[in-house]
Amino acid sequence: MLNPAIDPSEGLIEQLDLAPLRKGPLDGLRFTVKDNIDLAGYKTSYGSPAWRDAHPAPVHNALCVDQVLAAGARCVGKVVADEFTYSLDGESFYFGTPRNAKAPDRVPGGSSSGSAASVANGLADFSLCTDSGGSIRVPASLCGLWGMRPSLHRISEAGVLPFQPSVSTVGALADRFDVLDAAMRVLLNSSVSPMPSPKRIFVLQDALEVADSAVRDKVGDALDRIAGNTGVAVEPVRFSEIVGEECELKVCNLNGLRDLQTAEFQSTVGNWIEACKPELGFTFSMAYGNVQRFDRIAALDNMARCERLFRQINAFFAPDTVVCFPTTPKIAPRKGSLNTLEAVMDFYDPTMTLTAFSGVARLPEISTPLMTVDDCPVGLSFVAGHYQDEFLLSSVREMTC
Amino acid sequence: MLNPAIDPSEGLIEQLDLAPLRKGPLDGLRFTVKDNIDLAGYKTSYGSPAWRDAHPAPVHNALCVDQVLAAGARCVGKVVADEFTYSLDGESFYFGTPRNAKAPDRVPGGSSSGSAASVANGLADFSLCTDSGGSIRVPASLCGLWGMRPSLHRISEAGVLPFQPSVSTVGALADRFDVLDAAMRVLLNSSVSPMPSPKRIFVLQDALEVADSAVRDKVGDALDRIAGNTGVAVEPVRFSEIVGEECELKVCNLNGLRDLQTAEFQSTVGNWIEACKPELGFTFSMAYGNVQRFDRIAALDNMARCERLFRQINAFFAPDTVVCFPTTPKIAPRKGSLNTLEAVMDFYDPTMTLTAFSGVARLPEISTPLMTVDDCPVGLSFVAGHYQDEFLLSSVREMTC
Repeated sequence: MLNPAIDPSEGLIEQLDLAPLRKGPLDGLRFTVKDNIDLAGYKTSYGSPAWRDAHPAPVHNALCVDQVLAAGARCVGKVVADEFTYSLDGESFYFGTPRNAKAPDRVPGGSSSGSAASVANGLADFSLCTDSGGSIRVPASLCGLWGMRPSLHRISEAGVLPFQPSVSTVGALADRFDVLDAAMRVLLNSSVSPMPSPKRIFVLQDALEVADSAVRDKVGDALDRIAGNTGVAVEPVRFSEIVGEECELKVCNLNGLRDLQTAEFQSTVGNWIEACKPELGFTFSMAYGNVQRFDRIAALDNMARCERLFRQINAFFAPDTVVCFPTTPKIAPRKGSLNTLEAVMDFYDPTMTLTAFSGVARLPEISTPLMTVDDCPVGLSFVAGHYQDEFLLSSVREMTC
Repeated sequence: MLNPAIDPSEGLIEQLDLAPLRKGPLDGLRFTVKDNIDLAGYKTSYGSPAWRDAHPAPVHNALCVDQVLAAGARCVGKVVADEFTYSLDGESFYFGTPRNAKAPDRVPGGSSSGSAASVANGLADFSLCTDSGGSIRVPASLCGLWGMRPSLHRISEAGVLPFQPSVSTVGALADRFDVLDAAMRVLLNSSVSPMPSPKRIFVLQDALEVADSAVRDKVGDALDRIAGNTGVAVEPVRFSEIVGEECELKVCNLNGLRDLQTAEFQSTVGNWIEACKPELGFTFSMAYGNVQRFDRIAALDNMARCERLFRQINAFFAPDTVVCFPTTPKIAPRKGSLNTLEAVMDFYDPTMTLTAFSGVARLPEISTPLMTVDDCPVGLSFVAGHYQDEFLLSSVREMTC
């Protein structure tokens, strides 16, 4: 660790007190900002001391920061991100492992590890963060928080470090649904208009089969509660029914999104690393080796498949449709346990099978803290159609609150 | 001009010969690449020598470059972009003014000036370029080329310098419709599937009123040809009918997109300029003064209006609907004539009133070289619904070829 003065437990890198710019719907709420999102006058590290040292401090806040400051919220800190936000586990070589408040011997999930810890440990009401492969949804699930990845490109990424342009989103983590809802509506520039109730609620069978049996069992209880709240019976659906052809859920990741993500990462962070040869943390170095060896030309067909999957999945989503599944297939791994290739694969592969569904389809997803397995949180996710972010928010309120 | 050795007439900065990576639908076609799109091993200048000198050469091609190389095309050069691509006129302080082949005493339009010149002067069959406020469509119109700005974020921006994340697109300019169609389908990762014919073709009256009377007269002739080709009568429509409330077309630019563009530009290029204080060209310096004085907090309401306009305009577009209007309200200004504030405003304001329509609504737009006024080209644009890029391509073929 480069800076032994940092206590990573709450995820804080820099304590701040930036007053609201105007009054608004977020009056009285405190927020933190993930360290890949610009705060004027403070260097943005991207989770990498080498990046931080090589780049000047921005003079402007990211647009999303200005949006919530102008809606009444107060910024209380800059918080840890995994190195180059290229991780889902939350164990930073440089900035430590923020504390998972509800499962302290386990990882918080990443890459928005500090965002999750700052909210779960009571430092903030919500955190501005980013999600490409699951970086909001996974910490939401593992720390027992509410988290939303919006439809791709609904929220401006101006002032957010470029990561994977066709996959990256800006969203939020919060400790209460009301706070998530209010913050997301500001970020989404939502108009006030009545939304329909969900008429079709599906549970994705393929995702249940990927999940641990203990998680699967808890999903049943949660679905009973949802049916009780809405009066709508939850229907099982298979991925092949959604896309309209024989197809396994894992293709979203293995034959599509993963390659698009890797190619785009080569073009953003990859170009910089190759040119500048910065110091890299141990875990990131391992992952980056795969990026260096990646053959982007051979992968072009999988990138084209992403476009087809987007169209197929979106054709399934009527404006009244919601699909749910466990956000992650397991509870959080124990801290320090991801130290073999087998352990890493066992965490990442099934997790990304679930997170790639809304990723490849560019859909909004909300992870809700409705389940507990062995006293550890695990999220239940809800997905709606493209740009149906407001419908998803109102549906989740109706289904779960 | 920093490099007097460059002859800017064809828009070329660097002559290249990058062989195709595979055979494909673009076999035998030559293309150029705008100088804000990465070519492995060559510095990307962004139209700014200061930027070029401050940044290392990329090791990867932009993904769009790899897509067309892998589809059989050959890269023949890197071509001029206006400084930071922040212009619509094509007169670069540093790289000169590429020749407008069909109106040599007039500007080619920008910021994809070199892309247009390289195609119009016969150096390439198509050019990869970018469009936010009109940087593909304006040169297409003023140089008499086919040009397409796709739906926002349909095409990967990996390896394209970050400009205005909520507005920027990757597209192409070509000298023939068939070439534009083939190149765009590769970039769009299009599946082959039959498309419906356009059933409703509208002409946007507000745009005609902004255009010069000589341009307006030519639109009538073009519409007769379209009606003859399709058997569909072209219907007039007002912007207020499209959005469903009393509203002028110019709000798309003046009360929406312009502020979003300026705020996002502050966060990308602006942050870099403020930190590094690079040498800036005269014309860009003038424009950048406005960026520095821009109050992004006061503009947040206009940014929220962009979201409302997107929803309103998109609600109008059924899957069989096309809207057309002149791409630019005038033919190209004479070279060197944009030297007073009045002349600049007279070019930019009405032009951006027209280009902001698809910009704010995130829609695909194709500019077609169907009109000539005083022996100078001026484009006729067609716009379709969000992500209806393939429908727009097949409709334009049916309407114009």
